[in-house]
Amino acid sequence: MAAQKNVEQITSMDTDFAQWYTDVVTRAELIGYSGVKGFFILRPYGFAIWENIQAELDRRFKELEHENVSMPLLIPESLLQKEKDHVEGFAPECAWVTFGGAEELEERLCIRPTSETLFCDHWAQTVRSWRDLPKLYNQWCSVLRWEKTTRPFLRHREFLWQEGHTLHATAAEAIAETEQMLKVYAETYENLLAMPAVVGAKTDKEKFAGAERTYTVECMMHDKKALQAATSHYFGDGFARAFDITFTDKNNQLQHPFQTSWGFTTRSIGGIIMTHGDDNGLVMPPRVAPVQVVIIPVAAHKPGVLDKADELLKRLKKLGLRVKLDDSDNSPGWKFAEHEMRGVPLRIELGPRDIEAGKCVAVRRPDGEKIEVALDELEARVPAILDDIHGIMFAKAKKNLDENTRNAVTLDDAKRIIVEHGGFIKTAWCGDEACELAMKNDVGVSSRCIPFGQEHIADVCLVCGKPAKHTVVWGVAY
Amino acid sequence: MAAQKNVEQITSMDTDFAQWYTDVVTRAELIGYSGVKGFFILRPYGFAIWENIQAELDRRFKELEHENVSMPLLIPESLLQKEKDHVEGFAPECAWVTFGGAEELEERLCIRPTSETLFCDHWAQTVRSWRDLPKLYNQWCSVLRWEKTTRPFLRHREFLWQEGHTLHATAAEAIAETEQMLKVYAETYENLLAMPAVVGAKTDKEKFAGAERTYTVECMMHDKKALQAATSHYFGDGFARAFDITFTDKNNQLQHPFQTSWGFTTRSIGGIIMTHGDDNGLVMPPRVAPVQVVIIPVAAHKPGVLDKADELLKRLKKLGLRVKLDDSDNSPGWKFAEHEMRGVPLRIELGPRDIEAGKCVAVRRPDGEKIEVALDELEARVPAILDDIHGIMFAKAKKNLDENTRNAVTLDDAKRIIVEHGGFIKTAWCGDEACELAMKNDVGVSSRCIPFGQEHIADVCLVCGKPAKHTVVWGVAY
Repeated sequence: MAAQKNVEQITSMDTDFAQWYTDVVTRAELIGYSGVKGFFILRPYGFAIWENIQAELDRRFKELEHENVSMPLLIPESLLQKEKDHVEGFAPECAWVTFGGAEELEERLCIRPTSETLFCDHWAQTVRSWRDLPKLYNQWCSVLRWEKTTRPFLRHREFLWQEGHTLHATAAEAIAETEQMLKVYAETYENLLAMPAVVGAKTDKEKFAGAERTYTVECMMHDKKALQAATSHYFGDGFARAFDITFTDKNNQLQHPFQTSWGFTTRSIGGIIMTHGDDNGLVMPPRVAPVQVVIIPVAAHKPGVLDKADELLKRLKKLGLRVKLDDSDNSPGWKFAEHEMRGVPLRIELGPRDIEAGKCVAVRRPDGEKIEVALDELEARVPAILDDIHGIMFAKAKKNLDENTRNAVTLDDAKRIIVEHGGFIKTAWCGDEACELAMKNDVGVSSRCIPFGQEHIADVCLVCGKPAKHTVVWGVAY
Repeated sequence: MAAQKNVEQITSMDTDFAQWYTDVVTRAELIGYSGVKGFFILRPYGFAIWENIQAELDRRFKELEHENVSMPLLIPESLLQKEKDHVEGFAPECAWVTFGGAEELEERLCIRPTSETLFCDHWAQTVRSWRDLPKLYNQWCSVLRWEKTTRPFLRHREFLWQEGHTLHATAAEAIAETEQMLKVYAETYENLLAMPAVVGAKTDKEKFAGAERTYTVECMMHDKKALQAATSHYFGDGFARAFDITFTDKNNQLQHPFQTSWGFTTRSIGGIIMTHGDDNGLVMPPRVAPVQVVIIPVAAHKPGVLDKADELLKRLKKLGLRVKLDDSDNSPGWKFAEHEMRGVPLRIELGPRDIEAGKCVAVRRPDGEKIEVALDELEARVPAILDDIHGIMFAKAKKNLDENTRNAVTLDDAKRIIVEHGGFIKTAWCGDEACELAMKNDVGVSSRCIPFGQEHIADVCLVCGKPAKHTVVWGVAY
């Protein structure tokens, strides 16, 4: 009864959301702990989610003519220091290599916290003419940031990501790329992970170290806190100047090109868990679920049941679905709980009576809805039910986001909302960092973004009363 | 005329094979040099080869029920030291992290040179019962080994690879896994990379640090030197004992499981270059070529030519082929040389007269053979021609291997063969390391492997004259 115990061991979300989260990532075997703090093992079930996300993002990047490359793991300290803002942002979090074998290195090497400096160094050597542009590069790798507090998926010292880096002849092209990749991220969250996204620009305070603009995808978790889910940066020609990247334009003039970078990480898996999970464990969005359908035979010892279950397995696999037949010797009840805990979107129950009646029972994980499916309609119905499940999950998350996003026109409003409800607040803001800090200190929220498609909340900043420049979404963030 | 210059700049193979190699990897834009010795950049064209290899290997691993995981980058020194032979083999080559941010670490952390210790540590925590076995894990990542001499693809301080790690209830199962994965590697070389493989066991001297047996795939390069192309290791229960991994078997007895690991690296790309390349540059095996077919319009300004070329592009893409239309404003001659240098397996030339005659000219890269293809037979002919190219390349490499593998029954034989011809020699061997060292010192060759399917060369060891235990293949290795 090991797995039944597993389910029982999951703390209820309402009792302790943080403990619930840790229970889920552990019991569902997504994560393992290694001997070094903040370095997590992605176990097969956890890594398979990442592989599914990766496949879809990679396909989209390539469709948009990006090319994958592999840059070195290590950055010489002198190279990291070339762009002033960048090194200030990252140096305090770097892991440093000081010995190669028995030999002490002449210059310390940092394990990449991000690779802008490496791409710049490469481009400074290889880009000559406008014919070499744009460069649309991406790499899949891990990066290190020596964080003090760590949590599975949400904050690792080592995490997996992709980092896109692009170089363009004009600022307009680079800005269009920055916006385009943010759109890809937002669509990935909505269409793949069933997570509604709030998209917009970061304030100057929250920008990436070295960026002129940072765009962001922000999601609301079940506990109404914000997750910064993916970012896209426009660098202007700051890095190009710092690294002396130049190209000869069509008029034979030497120019500095314009640059972007954008990243999507395994943090997204933490977002999936905290958006969709419930007290029974994980709820996986069907389009990235490692197992989309589990077939569970009932009274499996009766003649014909296992054969029929195997036939269904093969028919569903033929559709390209990720299907599993659980023919282990555990009881059906045990299996129901186990696969529920692992968040398998759809369970198909099949017993002798079902077979006799030419049907099976399909049970949707998010809401437990039972649907009779005629066996000869399997191929048509199952993919449609999986799409329904995606829709149900998205709608639930969207409802959570909408119901917990509130406007505030005074500081008292803002405080009251956060104390009573939590969630996101929308306010007018003057654009001054002092008022942003006041929101942090007095209300306990950080600016999540200046959303695209600005709506009017008030004429003046809720903190200082000066004329408002932007509408800002605020929240407590992971 | 930049690219024509590129081709001219490639040193002839016969003049200086090493310089030819460096010229090719640079001119074909496979590799870029970074600021740290031995850390190479895989540029888009080089990385695309790796992605194609990766896709096929990953498909085969999963077909054989392996699961991908992600293990940490860093290994605590104390963990690395748990298996004595292993740490002796790897510690001298480790890169050490001593600082996390500003804080000096209490224990040094090594950047993984290989991950046996991490998998063992994880399994010691998670494996309990025979029901948990086998564990069939794999990871795609980079590893670091602080080598003194480095060369693009062949010897990096950081290289990309996959490392498979498996755990089994019995020795027999683990040995079968070790042999199965070697077979997958050999088949990958032959069927994907068009490289014939000599497969067998390593001598004790050449085994992986900590392994009971190491199996290897050895290939012969154009210069007749050997490339150790992939290895597969059987560990017995040595690691399990060192790391205290146990499981309860079906009879409720506590047992140590048996373990394997196996790896395939970007070195394989160096192997492709040195097996198939010629004085015009790269020759890519069609099944992993980033561009399998390049279409070059002749007299592209004439009406209808570009439209027709674009039609062919679309039709070939529909077949799932990787095709490129070079409609740049360079001359056809320039394009021929450029894509030849990049090793594109098949070039399709299409001009106004071809279109009038309802045909195109397909030119095979390896041998320059020109084939007229009727435009309405394109879909049938092009994939078949690509298969022919694979066959031609394999046959040429096989001929090189066969013609340059010679038997030797005396030490003088062996010396004469190596001086006069180079290549591989096959000899009988007593099994003593002293004689293996004599071969190194007197003949200048190392043992490449004890091939499977042992043939009889002589009754006695060519060095000491004692009874022979094995037939060994020897050679000068990269």
